[in-house]
Amino acid sequence: MRLIESVREMTAWSREQVREGRTIAFVPTMGFLHEGHLTLMRRAREACDRVVVSIFVNPLQFGAGEDYEEYPRDLTRDSRLAESVGVDVLFAPTAGEMYPKGYHTAVEVDRLTEGLCGASRPGHFRGVTTVVCKLFNIVRPDVAYFGQKDAQQLAILRCMTEDLNLPVSIVGVPIVREADGLALSSRNVYLSPAERQAALVLSRSLAGARELIDQGERDAGRLRQVITEAITAEPLAAIDYVAIVDNRFIQPVDTLEGQCLIALAVRIGKTRLIDNMVVEV
Amino acid sequence: MRLIESVREMTAWSREQVREGRTIAFVPTMGFLHEGHLTLMRRAREACDRVVVSIFVNPLQFGAGEDYEEYPRDLTRDSRLAESVGVDVLFAPTAGEMYPKGYHTAVEVDRLTEGLCGASRPGHFRGVTTVVCKLFNIVRPDVAYFGQKDAQQLAILRCMTEDLNLPVSIVGVPIVREADGLALSSRNVYLSPAERQAALVLSRSLAGARELIDQGERDAGRLRQVITEAITAEPLAAIDYVAIVDNRFIQPVDTLEGQCLIALAVRIGKTRLIDNMVVEV
Repeated sequence: MRLIESVREMTAWSREQVREGRTIAFVPTMGFLHEGHLTLMRRAREACDRVVVSIFVNPLQFGAGEDYEEYPRDLTRDSRLAESVGVDVLFAPTAGEMYPKGYHTAVEVDRLTEGLCGASRPGHFRGVTTVVCKLFNIVRPDVAYFGQKDAQQLAILRCMTEDLNLPVSIVGVPIVREADGLALSSRNVYLSPAERQAALVLSRSLAGARELIDQGERDAGRLRQVITEAITAEPLAAIDYVAIVDNRFIQPVDTLEGQCLIALAVRIGKTRLIDNMVVEV
Repeated sequence: MRLIESVREMTAWSREQVREGRTIAFVPTMGFLHEGHLTLMRRAREACDRVVVSIFVNPLQFGAGEDYEEYPRDLTRDSRLAESVGVDVLFAPTAGEMYPKGYHTAVEVDRLTEGLCGASRPGHFRGVTTVVCKLFNIVRPDVAYFGQKDAQQLAILRCMTEDLNLPVSIVGVPIVREADGLALSSRNVYLSPAERQAALVLSRSLAGARELIDQGERDAGRLRQVITEAITAEPLAAIDYVAIVDNRFIQPVDTLEGQCLIALAVRIGKTRLIDNMVVEV
């Protein structure tokens, strides 16, 4: 596996692959890899001739007071993990490589970015779309893999890719969970043992909603209420949002219909966790 | 010459060229072609295996009350002209092809877009960068040609292309003028004979400034004053702006130094015209 840190070298490598007719699968990450990321990489490995993984803690997508500085980083461990699943190139640029002096451009998706994490993290998705657009242009993938865990991000990136006519197929990969239901996240390392236990309320509340839906419940207000009550019963948890939206444009719905997304963000102590499920009725 | 109206067909054509190792030169236009555009196309013809010209009056870059509806259009004449200079593909999509239902994405450059035409035409450059980013992804050019007449646009597109790591070389081509100095523009057709005469004040005022610079004048305030006085002396002319800025980030300068841009926008009757010159001191 090759480690590339400069944009110029990464660009040259990917141009060479394209010239030689090889397909490229891409997994953009912020590093501190876990089984969720490795699942994306295995999917990428099966799909294309070459697999590129980027590790870049993107300053643009962190707001003031968020955890940019403390976000966990471990390039040595990440390299070993990526190599173990057959990644060809680990692209780990510095912030200065990605945003040199005189950098002035942003890519922005409206409407889909307004609610959910967009409401609690202003500018976050603008940072995400900007960096992913850049990475697509640098890496030139045929296919890019994203976790369904960041469901709003996935919808936004699908929209951006289609709108800007970027020649990349976007593949969403189901959430990977611990045995007890906790969705994998690099931020789970922040949790104390008691918080780790409390964090189960996210997946548990979604499972409760799923049961009601299976029994025929279609009223979004009623489902939100049930989820909200379940989370509120957990003393260490504080709700950021509980949202039920259509899964394409991320707009609130009153009644489940077609493909909907039930998404939550909850603070467990100081750690903000997200979880979601897609329901098709 | 092939006329392509669908994004899908254009994308397929350009992918085919790339696969076969052919280079593509691209000239994006809003049509109603004049000698300025044809100059860009001849440059493109010399540079690459294939030449694509787009004709798209981009609704996103027109503000409320601007001339989107009346902007002159003549695809039959444009086709003939493009063919006469050896263009391979004329890409003329509809607005619905470029911005289908559910379109939500924009590309935006800050700072460079704030002054000059950006101040008088809010949202204009956001429309320009968005459509050019899309066109680059659809057409996949190696090189793209833009007129120096839209100097701020050229600086903004250079910035966008570099910032988003788009694999396109941007080439600026000098302004083409009538024998009496009027910069060519599709909007010149709006001018009455008296206005056509009055419009010469733009190039004449720039020539006056050039003379002073050649004599050693470096004070931007003094140069602006001289240009302003020349334009004010023309009864049919009303100044929108007279600006002296650095030619990379389009920021006002007090003293000419390095590469500067002297740019003006002037209303002649109802028609807004622009002109500029780059000075290197």
